[in-house]
Amino acid sequence: MRASQFYIATLKEAPSDAEIVSHKLMMRAGFIKKLSAGIYNYMPMGLRVIRKIENIIREEMNNAGAIELSMPIVQPAELWQETGRFDKMGDELLRFKDRHNRDFVIQPTSEEVITDIVRQDVRSYRQLPRNLYQIQTKFRDERRPRFGIMRGREFTMKDAYSFHASFEDLQREYQNMFSAYSRMFTRLGLQFRAVAADTGAIGGTGSHEFHVIAETGEDAIAYNPNSDYAANVELAEALPPANPRPAPQATLLKIHTPGIKTIDQLSASLKIAPTQTLKSIVIEGDDGTPVLLLLRGDHELNEVKASKLKGVFSPIRFAAPSVIREAFGSEPGSLGPIGFKGRIYADRAVAAMADFVIGANESDHHYTGANLGRDFAEPEFVDIRNVVAGDPSPDGNGPLAICRGIEVGHIFQLRTRYSQTMGCKFIGEDGKEQVMEMGCYGVGVTRIMGAAIEQNFDDRGIIWPDAIAPFQLVICPMGWSRSESVRDTTSAIYQELKRAGIDVILDDRDERPGVMFADWELIGIPHRIVIGDRGLKEGVAEYQGRRDTEATKVSVAEIVTFVRSRLVG
Amino acid sequence: MRASQFYIATLKEAPSDAEIVSHKLMMRAGFIKKLSAGIYNYMPMGLRVIRKIENIIREEMNNAGAIELSMPIVQPAELWQETGRFDKMGDELLRFKDRHNRDFVIQPTSEEVITDIVRQDVRSYRQLPRNLYQIQTKFRDERRPRFGIMRGREFTMKDAYSFHASFEDLQREYQNMFSAYSRMFTRLGLQFRAVAADTGAIGGTGSHEFHVIAETGEDAIAYNPNSDYAANVELAEALPPANPRPAPQATLLKIHTPGIKTIDQLSASLKIAPTQTLKSIVIEGDDGTPVLLLLRGDHELNEVKASKLKGVFSPIRFAAPSVIREAFGSEPGSLGPIGFKGRIYADRAVAAMADFVIGANESDHHYTGANLGRDFAEPEFVDIRNVVAGDPSPDGNGPLAICRGIEVGHIFQLRTRYSQTMGCKFIGEDGKEQVMEMGCYGVGVTRIMGAAIEQNFDDRGIIWPDAIAPFQLVICPMGWSRSESVRDTTSAIYQELKRAGIDVILDDRDERPGVMFADWELIGIPHRIVIGDRGLKEGVAEYQGRRDTEATKVSVAEIVTFVRSRLVG
Repeated sequence: MRASQFYIATLKEAPSDAEIVSHKLMMRAGFIKKLSAGIYNYMPMGLRVIRKIENIIREEMNNAGAIELSMPIVQPAELWQETGRFDKMGDELLRFKDRHNRDFVIQPTSEEVITDIVRQDVRSYRQLPRNLYQIQTKFRDERRPRFGIMRGREFTMKDAYSFHASFEDLQREYQNMFSAYSRMFTRLGLQFRAVAADTGAIGGTGSHEFHVIAETGEDAIAYNPNSDYAANVELAEALPPANPRPAPQATLLKIHTPGIKTIDQLSASLKIAPTQTLKSIVIEGDDGTPVLLLLRGDHELNEVKASKLKGVFSPIRFAAPSVIREAFGSEPGSLGPIGFKGRIYADRAVAAMADFVIGANESDHHYTGANLGRDFAEPEFVDIRNVVAGDPSPDGNGPLAICRGIEVGHIFQLRTRYSQTMGCKFIGEDGKEQVMEMGCYGVGVTRIMGAAIEQNFDDRGIIWPDAIAPFQLVICPMGWSRSESVRDTTSAIYQELKRAGIDVILDDRDERPGVMFADWELIGIPHRIVIGDRGLKEGVAEYQGRRDTEATKVSVAEIVTFVRSRLVG
Repeated sequence: MRASQFYIATLKEAPSDAEIVSHKLMMRAGFIKKLSAGIYNYMPMGLRVIRKIENIIREEMNNAGAIELSMPIVQPAELWQETGRFDKMGDELLRFKDRHNRDFVIQPTSEEVITDIVRQDVRSYRQLPRNLYQIQTKFRDERRPRFGIMRGREFTMKDAYSFHASFEDLQREYQNMFSAYSRMFTRLGLQFRAVAADTGAIGGTGSHEFHVIAETGEDAIAYNPNSDYAANVELAEALPPANPRPAPQATLLKIHTPGIKTIDQLSASLKIAPTQTLKSIVIEGDDGTPVLLLLRGDHELNEVKASKLKGVFSPIRFAAPSVIREAFGSEPGSLGPIGFKGRIYADRAVAAMADFVIGANESDHHYTGANLGRDFAEPEFVDIRNVVAGDPSPDGNGPLAICRGIEVGHIFQLRTRYSQTMGCKFIGEDGKEQVMEMGCYGVGVTRIMGAAIEQNFDDRGIIWPDAIAPFQLVICPMGWSRSESVRDTTSAIYQELKRAGIDVILDDRDERPGVMFADWELIGIPHRIVIGDRGLKEGVAEYQGRRDTEATKVSVAEIVTFVRSRLVG
């Protein structure tokens, strides 16, 4: 491709509504252009990235034995009413009426339609299993679309649905898709983690998310650097402490702590570690009485875990100050278990604590030297905190680390949620009718584009992985209009690289070097060749990788071989 | 691909609502599955065809210098209000409101959005010309969707839009697109014609349709087999007769013609050719008085042409019987020009007639031996008939022929229709601001699938052109489960064909030969290899093209070479 014939439209400034780095860079580099809130044009440069992502996904799905079809964007309400989702889903489901006043939706996913197809075509166990997928435009009418195409309204997803004669076969395919996704994200050139979306044990259970690792990610992920273990922090199990509780040494002592409301203030004032303090959180029990949760002072409450406790609301509700005052006789900030008559849950980590500091249930007073069992009854110990870096990994292979991620894929064992409701059945080998087992497997195609940037950028712009760069290589000639020898050599090298199957763009716009370099660094082309008269006198051009700090001189005769050696995959 | 791993779902019967052959065959062969009126799932077999069509279109558009982007399916009303189409377009434009009660449409085309993009990015003549295209889902809320995907509601179109600094440059690009379309449809393996959508002169004017030739086509096309001339019959010019009018021979004679109302009855009763009769048609003038149109008895009124006459309504309105009785003093069936006081237009062909038969304006009476100028005043001669086969071609290169076609492409010089309204301007070389000239270029991607079938089928099923067949070749082994030698040889040949880059499917379903052959003939795979024990003993397999009446024996060792020689393109 010659740049003069392509569509390049870089901007000096990102629009003011671009909040995150990928959104800003995509707008500035001319990959997308906003049409409406959460709705973007994919400009030529951006569409090349999307097509490359789609092709890798398609190849890996095909290699894994899935078969591609395409389901309509506009779908009739009837099927969505059959599963109840037409009424149950919120306003994210875009509903409208056609000219004959019939109800339709714009698909956010296609469970209903694929199940309708399979229940028509598949009657026998001999026709199972099936794994059907599409790469299709989706619409989700987000109330507050944001982050560019990361949380847009119109986007592209790969969604696959599998159908099985048994749960065992669903599990086999789930594992097959898990492997396909791992190959897919590896080929896309992204650092990623498969994250258990429930208990964290691979294979045993029904759902995994695939996250692109990026500091700016919305989700915190706990993972074991020494193993495959990874789980969303919301779900990662905090194991009971391995060390036993020390024997009490101190005596219980009430102290005056004027103005002290937080753990940080408490530990600073007493010059003790937050690990020596106890945090008291009061939530509503489902019978209306307050429930006290105790955590080690440096730990954070995990609301997802707490919502699963017996006798509390799900999701949890924090108790109102008036309720707290009545039950504890104190303002929040000085609460504790001593004297509290209601139900108490303590995090597992609390079980190993002794001689700690807690609120005294009297404003501006705390106890030091408090101990379980001695000063108040042993509470029920449960896992209600977020894991932190250094916690033992639930798989027993060493300590956990924490990173942030962007969810770009999700695989899920649907079981019979849709097939049961919609009557998607088959005749088994035994001649009896059975409901099919189902799995579903999604990848956010356009979201990957954003996530790849969040993972790979610097202050000059994007740094694309080779596999999904809009072009793998740019050739920047110095003095295109001025020097015939530059023009001829550049054109010859360009043709040679094209023949070698390298996806190259030649910048023949005759811009100044500064403009050219800034454009291509912003756009994020991973490899660059610069050709100028000075170098040509020595028979060399200059190569520079997008992450390299310096250029490398390369003999003109060896450019193709050299570039090939630098390309990944 | 192995058939056992693919998704094959053929039906014995087409559903009762399938009206035309392509719809019936696509449903029976499992290419599409209806989801709602005019909305279809593209099943795996059908999607393969669509992807091949898309790829050929994409390659030819890229080769012609157009650049691909993608515009959203959901578009905000504001831009459509800017051009007035939001209000002016009928119910085909699907409008809806989002959760915030803002107006949106689902795109039927994208003139507004592309013009909005270009007016933001392009400011100088140096950035022109531009030709941008997308291959995207479209929605048109047809009142009565029919003919399967030929007139569906949701469909795929390639739509390109070009922008120019001058009308001359628009004309150059129009010609460039005309050539690209010709290459595209040739590569698709379809018989087609570029048809002038207005005057019929190539290049000179603003619009051409590309039609796939098929007997079942909705449009009649007049074309010159000796030249490029082709025009929709609605628009093809009927030239004035070359021969002069003979001198009158007969005298005017009123005859009794009881019960005769039509030209056919008249010529049968008088034993004369319809060419010796005159047809009288009465329409409303725009001042309320009736206007008489005269045509040679065998010719048909062209309503599009008649609507352009001075002093009549557009589109034309036929006069009511009561109006006719008052103006002519006779019932319809015996009308004629003699004695009529109003305006008369005669078709050009009438100018060469003498001694003809016409209505006498008296019920059950006609005149024989009537003559222009002698028995009534010379009327104004105009072109108001459909051309017929044998008429001289307007380009002067011999007689016209008539065929039927299905419109699959349309190229159009929009000029400044959108750029003027939307303020899509640039600074010219002279430093002055000018409005851009625009062209647009559409191809009905999914419609091509239907049109290809309408052109290529027999009583056993579809006959795909090689370039867009779901698979180029099927291998049918006889006794797959029974014969190890068949299985081994077939597998080896299958691998060899795959390595040779041939798009082959191996039917390993272990079906009876009759079932296999019926399925693949219905599906329309253009080439078939049959492998059985009997042939293998002689070292041969059987090849049969989908249009061949007999099979050809081919040495197993030479199969790849042989198949290659039979593949088109």
